[in-house]
Amino acid sequence: MNTRTAASTQTISNFTANWLAVAQRITLCSLLLGSLPLGSMAIPCAPANADEGMWLFNALPKNYLKDTYDFTVTDEWANHIMLSSVRFNSGGSASFVSSNGLVLTNHHVGAETLHKLSDADNNYYKDGFYAKTMSDEIKAPDLELNQLVSISDVTAKVNGVVKPGMNAGAAAAARRAAIAKIENDSLEETKLRSNVVTLYGGARYHLYRYKKYTDVRLVWSPESAIAFFGGDADNFEYPRYCLDVCIFRVYENDEPAKVEHFLKVSKKGAGDGELVLVSGNPGRTQRIFTVAALKHQRDHRMPYVLDFLRRREILFQQFSLESDEKKRRGQDELFGLQNSRKAFTGMLKGLQNPSIIADKQKKEDQLRRAVGANPRLKKYATAWQQIEEVQARRLAIQGQTGSFASRRFDIAMELVLLAAEDAKPNEKRLPQYRDSNRESLEQQLFSPAPIYDDVELVKFADSIELFVERRGGDNELVRLVLDGQSPSNLAAAVLNKTKLADIDERKRLAKSGAEGISASKDPMIRLALIMEPEFRRLRKVGDELNEVERQAYSQIADALFAVQGASTYPDATFTLRLAYGPVKGYEEGGQRIPPWTTMGGAFDHEKRHNAKDDWQLPKSWKDRKDKLNLDTPFNFVCTADIIGGNSGSPVVNRAGELVGVIFDGNIQSLTADYMYSDEQGRATSVHSSAVIEALRKIYDAKKLADQLGN
Amino acid sequence: MNTRTAASTQTISNFTANWLAVAQRITLCSLLLGSLPLGSMAIPCAPANADEGMWLFNALPKNYLKDTYDFTVTDEWANHIMLSSVRFNSGGSASFVSSNGLVLTNHHVGAETLHKLSDADNNYYKDGFYAKTMSDEIKAPDLELNQLVSISDVTAKVNGVVKPGMNAGAAAAARRAAIAKIENDSLEETKLRSNVVTLYGGARYHLYRYKKYTDVRLVWSPESAIAFFGGDADNFEYPRYCLDVCIFRVYENDEPAKVEHFLKVSKKGAGDGELVLVSGNPGRTQRIFTVAALKHQRDHRMPYVLDFLRRREILFQQFSLESDEKKRRGQDELFGLQNSRKAFTGMLKGLQNPSIIADKQKKEDQLRRAVGANPRLKKYATAWQQIEEVQARRLAIQGQTGSFASRRFDIAMELVLLAAEDAKPNEKRLPQYRDSNRESLEQQLFSPAPIYDDVELVKFADSIELFVERRGGDNELVRLVLDGQSPSNLAAAVLNKTKLADIDERKRLAKSGAEGISASKDPMIRLALIMEPEFRRLRKVGDELNEVERQAYSQIADALFAVQGASTYPDATFTLRLAYGPVKGYEEGGQRIPPWTTMGGAFDHEKRHNAKDDWQLPKSWKDRKDKLNLDTPFNFVCTADIIGGNSGSPVVNRAGELVGVIFDGNIQSLTADYMYSDEQGRATSVHSSAVIEALRKIYDAKKLADQLGN
Repeated sequence: MNTRTAASTQTISNFTANWLAVAQRITLCSLLLGSLPLGSMAIPCAPANADEGMWLFNALPKNYLKDTYDFTVTDEWANHIMLSSVRFNSGGSASFVSSNGLVLTNHHVGAETLHKLSDADNNYYKDGFYAKTMSDEIKAPDLELNQLVSISDVTAKVNGVVKPGMNAGAAAAARRAAIAKIENDSLEETKLRSNVVTLYGGARYHLYRYKKYTDVRLVWSPESAIAFFGGDADNFEYPRYCLDVCIFRVYENDEPAKVEHFLKVSKKGAGDGELVLVSGNPGRTQRIFTVAALKHQRDHRMPYVLDFLRRREILFQQFSLESDEKKRRGQDELFGLQNSRKAFTGMLKGLQNPSIIADKQKKEDQLRRAVGANPRLKKYATAWQQIEEVQARRLAIQGQTGSFASRRFDIAMELVLLAAEDAKPNEKRLPQYRDSNRESLEQQLFSPAPIYDDVELVKFADSIELFVERRGGDNELVRLVLDGQSPSNLAAAVLNKTKLADIDERKRLAKSGAEGISASKDPMIRLALIMEPEFRRLRKVGDELNEVERQAYSQIADALFAVQGASTYPDATFTLRLAYGPVKGYEEGGQRIPPWTTMGGAFDHEKRHNAKDDWQLPKSWKDRKDKLNLDTPFNFVCTADIIGGNSGSPVVNRAGELVGVIFDGNIQSLTADYMYSDEQGRATSVHSSAVIEALRKIYDAKKLADQLGN
Repeated sequence: MNTRTAASTQTISNFTANWLAVAQRITLCSLLLGSLPLGSMAIPCAPANADEGMWLFNALPKNYLKDTYDFTVTDEWANHIMLSSVRFNSGGSASFVSSNGLVLTNHHVGAETLHKLSDADNNYYKDGFYAKTMSDEIKAPDLELNQLVSISDVTAKVNGVVKPGMNAGAAAAARRAAIAKIENDSLEETKLRSNVVTLYGGARYHLYRYKKYTDVRLVWSPESAIAFFGGDADNFEYPRYCLDVCIFRVYENDEPAKVEHFLKVSKKGAGDGELVLVSGNPGRTQRIFTVAALKHQRDHRMPYVLDFLRRREILFQQFSLESDEKKRRGQDELFGLQNSRKAFTGMLKGLQNPSIIADKQKKEDQLRRAVGANPRLKKYATAWQQIEEVQARRLAIQGQTGSFASRRFDIAMELVLLAAEDAKPNEKRLPQYRDSNRESLEQQLFSPAPIYDDVELVKFADSIELFVERRGGDNELVRLVLDGQSPSNLAAAVLNKTKLADIDERKRLAKSGAEGISASKDPMIRLALIMEPEFRRLRKVGDELNEVERQAYSQIADALFAVQGASTYPDATFTLRLAYGPVKGYEEGGQRIPPWTTMGGAFDHEKRHNAKDDWQLPKSWKDRKDKLNLDTPFNFVCTADIIGGNSGSPVVNRAGELVGVIFDGNIQSLTADYMYSDEQGRATSVHSSAVIEALRKIYDAKKLADQLGN
């Protein structure tokens, strides 16, 4: 499933973007993908393959769609789809599907919230949920949904502050200040969430304005057994049989929100070969990457990330063995880890294929020759070398972190940074401490979401052990942190004594300012204070490297524009894009894989696997099997260009009707991060018919089904 | 469970010893623990704790046992125990328990053979086995059991060949040649397996002669569900409830071997506080390690090994998900990986505890001061520095390997090396190609043990991927190996075409000599030829580093002798040792852990875990529960100093009766590799009463039970 990858990758690619206010994610970022050129997304080659592309809503490939598919995209159509699309800030996509605020997304996008709403007695993730009346709908503790309402180009404003002769650091600071001002002004003026997004490696800056929904309630979810049927083994595979959907509702002023733009839900879905379009928030791609950058990923970064993911996966497996309740508590994280591990394994396999690198090299050589031969572009000739140098510098700091994996540590670091940043003028602060992001930051910082002591302990202790491994037991910072104790004893002692699980205590500390923080005796605050200089140092180095890369990629992007002249799409930035392509099967191992599966096929699939492990359909399905139309299409594939973050994206037809919900890509699509191919790579969706059939005949949710599209 | 650790660690510590003839293990060695000072085992500090020590049978601590336990060890007693003890060359210990050749060991020591004897229809590992008559006993395909029959000191002969002024490389070569000659002469003279063992870091060389048994047949095994009750979660934990035993029989000339020395099996076992003694083959300890060497383990080697183990564990988990048969095929390897991962995790946790390193540092500083102050010892002052330098050189080659993880690749490399080595005079060959080891080598090289294509493919492909990761995709050797293909495509193509699964083809190639090998078109032979120079280079570097370390540790050992004067024990070398200590419970988390569990406790333990996952007792136990004496002691702990390789060791009382079978150490004992502590560390055994009770009342094996001890 893609979203988890999205949840990590998008948080990374947007590390510097201001919607990211959660220290917890910062930790994940710095551990997982700190070396990626954060925010420095740029232009890939002009599409080499027919259906390639994650297109900006204000620069759609209208001519191509007209010429190839005889489909005319009107501004009205595009605007309707844009306003019907929803972003889950926790890392996924969704759509409005009724006038009274129903939001349809993936079960695995909602999973984090399902877990947060569950406890030892009610496991909504596992057992599902259905609110028969609106008063039964349960409010998510800290979910924020965004609806994109406008896009405007602010490139001139941002780039205008960079004066000739400024070095990389000064240029970055100047741009950051300009962006902060634009965002702040927009927020004050419109009260809308306002984010400046860096596109085409800095060749374009767009201001995105979002309507925010923070009162989000759970309406319906199926059992995890059918949402994730086949489990880790079937993940990224096809054919599939997953009802990976769930439904929320947004509220305003304690009433269901009145939504003007929403998608009608098609009862028959799309036919074989029919064009479909996907509107969602792809998290991150790196198609602009130079060969040197790809080699860094291949030889250093991905092996490193995979070692980390496997370490955590084993840790959570062991944790889950201890009891059923621990299994429940660790499930969301374990699933995310397995998903990422499988995704990165597929990506690394692709990069280790010499022919893929050779192909990239050939294209790069062509471009560099063209740049060398063009008097206007000659000045860009050093860009590739600069990117190569950045990789070496990234390698030198690989594995260094200023954080530990603990929600309480993240809160502590957030409080420490907040106190220090608030003493600065708004535009000089780190992005997530700017006024424009204060509401999001506080929603996370003061979230009542449960923090499980046992999960905390196992992660915190392991991350201190990893910190000791990476720096060596004799390192000065390690000595300061351990203070003579073993990592596991230290973790237990700190978690025992810290008061940061208490929201009032967090609020008190947040109010107490720099003085209050420095006087605090809370051991987690003390630990965060020890780590703060290192956290800031690494952040600064990262920002510098990002800026160098941003400028170099921006030059390459400009060269590509000049040489190829084609209108094209920027790398993904966890912002709204449109992708497209026909519903279409493919060949694998000499076999024809059909575009659809059916609900009846799920029962056959269960039987083939002896109804064992993750191949056990839930009781509800077995009980209602006789009532079902077993020929109902269940999952289907299309060639649309998607990536992590697209999970939950509505798949629409020309008429703008929802025909499916993206939930995965097949294993062959995993190279999409750096290369699109429609030879075998496919996006996988839940078919709209299956959602309706299941709601009506399995979940007795006729009332809910009737609301869909109305 | 310790043996698996043993299986890997002992193969390493004995990498250069001639009993190790299996290319498969070489691979494991080089990956797992290549940086350990192979064979350079030496003297630790004199025992600081009462029951510390793995004592040589020709240098038992008779005075201590007399003074502390009022137990007089006679030569007759020691000789009887020695001759009743059995070594499993695959990596474990055992004992003779009847005059007609019955051998009692752990189920997990026999597991490799149980798997090799199983197929899709008969899973003896999982379902157990009982040969009601001798004709039903099944011959193991390639098991070799050794009975130690004599020990003699050959130190003078070995050291006599090292001339003053020889450099490390020349000295190592001279010693190797001398050892080869001693072994060869002994083999010719006695027809007994003859191995020279390096002790006390080279201060002593002992010639061990073994009677070999190569016709070994399976007699009885319980179900894995009770042998490994509680699975990976309970592994290394206590209290435990495991019937981790199985029984083989050795044959000579197709008749049950007549065995003069065997252990009587005690029906009541040992009482609380009673002295027990353990006779077995601890695989490897590193108690002589300097602080620099321990820090290398802490900061580099163990994190590296753990990354590898977790990688393989996930790989085999994924493999097992694919089908029940794959699960069966991968089970032995998966279990070994989990076991090692858990063991190394425990060891690393210990090393990351600053107080443990501080304690070691204090002792080392004391010794170094004493050395500096003693005119005779002053020349040893540089030994610690030399060892520190070796660690840096080990780090520089960490992760480099000349092998891939495939049985067929190992066979290919074995054939390539054999052809080249056979062209040299016997004493100049690598140890495992000397005449004295030819029989063992051929037993492995031409073993009919099944090679599963699917297991081969997944390991082989992964190890090529790892090879690319470690060296980088642009490395020249990587290019030569891949030849333009992706690692997984290469692996599939080579395995498809190689003929090395065919034993006759292996024999043909072995006979064809260097010319035949170099002309072979078998793709696996071609690959081995590409890798051969790198394999030899790494082997040579390893040998050199080992020799430098051997000499340095030998100096430290000598200094320790001089300063402390106490008679003591050498680090473990997978040769027969005696350990001892009382049966004794311990305190943990404020709780008193009793020394015993009972068979009835197993049923309670199942219930506590809702009879889920690995906590399901086999049907046979449930069916016979009513017949059992539920108070029968099941597992027990004692303070004896054991380590991996001791699995299956007989635990005897003063009368020389078998009262238990070692099968594990608790989690607190995992630091035993570098430090013994009896505060909480305990050796875990199956109680003799439980073996008899189970055979009689659960397995209807009265006939077999009657033979035990007779």
